[in-house]
Amino acid sequence: MKVLALMAIPAPIKDQIAALPNVQIEGPDYLAQHGLTDITAIFGWQGQLNDLIKENSTVRFVQSFSAGVDYFPLATFQKKNIVMANTSGIHARPIAESVLAYVLAFARGIADSAHRTPENFWDRDASRGDVFTLPGKTALIYGTGHIGRAIADILTQQGMTVTGISHHGEAVAPFTAVGTDQDSAAFAKAADVIINIMPLTPETHHFFNAAFFNALTKKPLFINVGRGPSVDTEALVAALQTGQLSGAALDVFEQEPLPATSPLWQAPHLLMTPHVSGAFAEIYTAAATILYHNLAQFVRDGSLAENQVDLSQGY
Amino acid sequence: MKVLALMAIPAPIKDQIAALPNVQIEGPDYLAQHGLTDITAIFGWQGQLNDLIKENSTVRFVQSFSAGVDYFPLATFQKKNIVMANTSGIHARPIAESVLAYVLAFARGIADSAHRTPENFWDRDASRGDVFTLPGKTALIYGTGHIGRAIADILTQQGMTVTGISHHGEAVAPFTAVGTDQDSAAFAKAADVIINIMPLTPETHHFFNAAFFNALTKKPLFINVGRGPSVDTEALVAALQTGQLSGAALDVFEQEPLPATSPLWQAPHLLMTPHVSGAFAEIYTAAATILYHNLAQFVRDGSLAENQVDLSQGY
Repeated sequence: MKVLALMAIPAPIKDQIAALPNVQIEGPDYLAQHGLTDITAIFGWQGQLNDLIKENSTVRFVQSFSAGVDYFPLATFQKKNIVMANTSGIHARPIAESVLAYVLAFARGIADSAHRTPENFWDRDASRGDVFTLPGKTALIYGTGHIGRAIADILTQQGMTVTGISHHGEAVAPFTAVGTDQDSAAFAKAADVIINIMPLTPETHHFFNAAFFNALTKKPLFINVGRGPSVDTEALVAALQTGQLSGAALDVFEQEPLPATSPLWQAPHLLMTPHVSGAFAEIYTAAATILYHNLAQFVRDGSLAENQVDLSQGY
Repeated sequence: MKVLALMAIPAPIKDQIAALPNVQIEGPDYLAQHGLTDITAIFGWQGQLNDLIKENSTVRFVQSFSAGVDYFPLATFQKKNIVMANTSGIHARPIAESVLAYVLAFARGIADSAHRTPENFWDRDASRGDVFTLPGKTALIYGTGHIGRAIADILTQQGMTVTGISHHGEAVAPFTAVGTDQDSAAFAKAADVIINIMPLTPETHHFFNAAFFNALTKKPLFINVGRGPSVDTEALVAALQTGQLSGAALDVFEQEPLPATSPLWQAPHLLMTPHVSGAFAEIYTAAATILYHNLAQFVRDGSLAENQVDLSQGY
């Protein structure tokens, strides 16, 4: 069987995969010449595959490089009985570190100082009044899956109280309380930091909109490490401009790459990173290892070893 | 006895101090009108006092607002048998958080992204290659006193290995190894992050100079939350320009306020904050509480309850 690898596979793992019975690795050149002909498994994704997969009947397994799979044609996979796995798990630690990095950048005056000029840099009285430490502060995390829990762990470790909102509202450690959408407004009002890590679904599109931001009373920080379209960008910019939010950090955007015309470039008290919160130096090894585990089992019995996506749920 | 308070004392603690037997609090107005006449204790400091204290014979106790006391006329205090206390202890948590904030700002791409423009912001391949997570990385802390230990604690908690350099070289938890100046070069070569929290003494002036930076082989991060003059600014700028350091974060400077003419304003991969790493919202309460404890004991028996400075050591 042919495996189309669109993401790099580090050498030692490539050798392990190539040693699996009947497995042959093909690359982007194969795709350019033969399309998906004879391809059984795909690692990674490209926009052109959305059309190609509709006509193809040989692909049986898709392994994403990402945790979120909202950009894959899940309905087509379901119809064609294609099994799918994501890389959920490997991003938990780096995303949790990124969230702590954003919170601390605001807490310790880095965000405020980054855009200062020689003329106003030493306005220490203003700076001193704004800096704070984390113990005793409250964070609310939208999404209590394993990445949400890793974020909750790293913030709890720093003395913060962490609450959560999830679809099911089930209590999960280390959250001190978990509610459902019904509890969202009340929980958000009590939070010093609000963090989104929800998957993108029709329900979460523009979940963080003007009504959400306008209801806040505590001038919290807002952090999005989930999906860009969960946030109404215009509403976020307005909330920063009016001071309804004391600051925000975005790693994901409604449109990626972030266009130069985005109003975010003019928004105050905003930190932005280019969708790297889940990245780390060893990411290619970690993702390829999941691919290897899944392929090894797939060639035996057609099932996946880990990280299988529930195509009807979208995560 | 009169207490000259040059720093704000929050109301509840002011009442407690005023209720001590024979204690009367005076402010900056008193200083302007009467100098140090009849003043027994001073809370805080101003440059003009360096001269006034030489002529005065009534001051017996000075309470600093800071942890470091290098800017006080310690030799004069010693000669006049003035006892002194600092606020060492209250700054440990905020400084440790600041160090973690700087490390994470570099690790998670915030420092790199902060100065990007709409044109180069989405250069994700460059960004992805540079981001990293903390577990397995090594930090070297110069200074293993209680602030150094608090920094070591917060970094160890994130999976980093932490070594230290101190005057005495005594092993202290959670440092995995502590050396003396003799070990400095070897320890520094092995570190991914180098942190200074040493007090300023003749030995530590320009300790981090061209020779120090040039001997590094691992392109580490350098963080100064100790004292500005411990770093040779020109040498640091050169180390950043040549890439000898992959980044630096400075909260303290050779000259404060940092002048607009400083070459630091042009240095690459540099984060700067205006001497706020020890600050936090409740700092006035925390410092005044130490003053109260010391005054309460001082009026009883002339000794101090906590944080007494060894005037011959300078900390």
